[in-house]
Amino acid sequence: MTLTVDHKRLLQSIKASSIIGATQNGGLNRLALSDEDKVMRDFFKQWMEKEGLQIRFDDFGNMYGRREGINSDHSAVLIGSHLDTQPNGGKFDGVLGVLAALEVIRVLNENDIKTKRPIEIVNFTNEEGARFEPPMLGSGGIANIFSRDFIYSVQDKDGKSFGAELEKTGYLGTETNRANDIYRYVELHIEQGPVLENHRTNIGAVTGIQGMTWLEVRISGHSAHAGTTPLLMRKDALLFSSKMISLIHEITAQIDPHCLVTIGRISASPGAVNCVAGEVVFSVDVRHEEDSIRDRAVEVIRETLSTLAASEDFGITISELWEIKTSHFSEDIISLIEDAAKERHYSCERIISGAAHDAKYMNHIVPSGMIFVPSVDGKSHCEDELTLDEDLINGANILLDVTLSLTQK
Amino acid sequence: MTLTVDHKRLLQSIKASSIIGATQNGGLNRLALSDEDKVMRDFFKQWMEKEGLQIRFDDFGNMYGRREGINSDHSAVLIGSHLDTQPNGGKFDGVLGVLAALEVIRVLNENDIKTKRPIEIVNFTNEEGARFEPPMLGSGGIANIFSRDFIYSVQDKDGKSFGAELEKTGYLGTETNRANDIYRYVELHIEQGPVLENHRTNIGAVTGIQGMTWLEVRISGHSAHAGTTPLLMRKDALLFSSKMISLIHEITAQIDPHCLVTIGRISASPGAVNCVAGEVVFSVDVRHEEDSIRDRAVEVIRETLSTLAASEDFGITISELWEIKTSHFSEDIISLIEDAAKERHYSCERIISGAAHDAKYMNHIVPSGMIFVPSVDGKSHCEDELTLDEDLINGANILLDVTLSLTQK
Repeated sequence: MTLTVDHKRLLQSIKASSIIGATQNGGLNRLALSDEDKVMRDFFKQWMEKEGLQIRFDDFGNMYGRREGINSDHSAVLIGSHLDTQPNGGKFDGVLGVLAALEVIRVLNENDIKTKRPIEIVNFTNEEGARFEPPMLGSGGIANIFSRDFIYSVQDKDGKSFGAELEKTGYLGTETNRANDIYRYVELHIEQGPVLENHRTNIGAVTGIQGMTWLEVRISGHSAHAGTTPLLMRKDALLFSSKMISLIHEITAQIDPHCLVTIGRISASPGAVNCVAGEVVFSVDVRHEEDSIRDRAVEVIRETLSTLAASEDFGITISELWEIKTSHFSEDIISLIEDAAKERHYSCERIISGAAHDAKYMNHIVPSGMIFVPSVDGKSHCEDELTLDEDLINGANILLDVTLSLTQK
Repeated sequence: MTLTVDHKRLLQSIKASSIIGATQNGGLNRLALSDEDKVMRDFFKQWMEKEGLQIRFDDFGNMYGRREGINSDHSAVLIGSHLDTQPNGGKFDGVLGVLAALEVIRVLNENDIKTKRPIEIVNFTNEEGARFEPPMLGSGGIANIFSRDFIYSVQDKDGKSFGAELEKTGYLGTETNRANDIYRYVELHIEQGPVLENHRTNIGAVTGIQGMTWLEVRISGHSAHAGTTPLLMRKDALLFSSKMISLIHEITAQIDPHCLVTIGRISASPGAVNCVAGEVVFSVDVRHEEDSIRDRAVEVIRETLSTLAASEDFGITISELWEIKTSHFSEDIISLIEDAAKERHYSCERIISGAAHDAKYMNHIVPSGMIFVPSVDGKSHCEDELTLDEDLINGANILLDVTLSLTQK
């Protein structure tokens, strides 16, 4: 017998979540540890209680519900994601992974299925980082990426700390409750990009999370009056930067056409219509599945910009804002996803995740994996974020299959 | 006998002015109708009184001092500029023109020279527009560019109105006191650009004030996640805008290499390191001495950008923020400047002003002209603004000569 999730029940859970922190334009505004987040947590807790799960919270507010296995001393399969959202974010990012995990439990319960290994479902705190920067504080905490002191001290824009706000919600638990003795972590998530939709693929078997480098480039020329300074006497930092932005794309494409490069932030000073820009600062975001190719691209960008700035007599400083290496997910989970998709006649392809997720940090402490489902128009972190019902259900079915396979191991 | 200004006295006046609103780094912060501006006006009034001038203020606070001529029914020669400054501006912009005009009076008085025409010296209110936008409200008021109601209603950033602030200074006069029955207006000013210094020229005989067009270009693409959106699926508004910025410079140079084009302001949204820019807005400032060439450049920029945006499927709107035509100064004044420079063995060249000045609006109601002296490194509107003593004196001597010539006509 092939188990299948209950379509209506899953969509109903997502619909209920869509009301808690709803925006006028069909999105969600449910920032981590906000009043809305607390209400959502209360619902999730009730739903877990109703399924007879053993509920606990750890010292970062991560919420767990445990379903015992036949071999209760075996390490558990952990599945879930996060219930917090961006400001004016969407209804699916994170939510799908948590509520599909709950649906997996519901299906097992109603079919009275016993699994060898225990299953735990999880809602991680502050994945988005929209209220408390950096993102993924809950999963990063248990993976020892961040210290507890640091996490508690992080403040939102109103100066409220993570620690104090967590205590207020009533979901502050103990360190002993952290995810422990876990066999595998699996997270179902919307793609947040256009690839699966574009390829008309149902399921993405995520191979890992792409590494990235963030650079800040500062170009110094001379500010001058737009009316009184002849073109040949100018040192126009914005004109030079414009050429550099085009060039960065060209040289990166030469290294590897799949190397993603993005200049998303730019400022020119003094920034007046009638002033030649004396200084321009712009960001460069470089990503690639292979760390060595990303490193090479960053090196070539640095060298090319520095050489050209020197030859055209512009000042330049290039600072690295951030760098993370590619995380490679567990090959056994990738294969299980592919097998499950094949079994259900869903099309499936391997895909690297361009965005970070809780699975990234979990992968530091336990072999992890992710299942992606298509995002309409690739949109995410906005009120228009949409994944079609069919894709939500397909994803939940694959999560069910993979979880069941893992529990039998 | 060739009259000559008193070097020490002129420099002393400028030095006195340099104290009133002095900044720590050697500049001036003397915004229009501020306490500092009032103190400077009080000094200037005393200096005019000491020279026996008939003093009056008009309804915009413009201050006049009149020295009678032999033919008191002849229209007067008006000379001057403004005493207000930019925030953290320089010591010479405007100040030189007013205090050199005062020096002309002093030289004539001490040499007991009678002139046929009367001479009036003037300090225009709010030339800079730094406190009350737009600039040149005093000269624009008497030239009927702006209505009195409009000028009085203009507010500074604290919500204080020009009208109320003018009244507070004690320099609110009557409409009947406006400059009236003027033969010519002549203004000595620092160049605020690098051309004279670069050509090692002492004096600029200003032919007019360059026309300009300000455009705002809005490019619409699609905002997207930098990590999840393949390059070929992007509609990157900043990458496209960068190419447009380079292209605008190329096509303008093809039309006329002397056509000044400046992109000084740019913003990208959402403006995050990890977001492909969905929208970019940038300014385009186009200037040329010939209105027809400027018009042609603007037309070609508009056409080229619109065509390219359409062909690459970007949205585009181009709005005109501002347009003013070139003002041509009086040929007789230009010639008088050249003759005077030749007589004194100062090198001289004709130059168009890239920046606007009170003479622009005065030229609407009376034939006007301007004398430029070099700015070190072309710097202005900053604390580093500098014109060498020799150049200050040369300029004042030419103003003296031209004024004397005009009074004899």
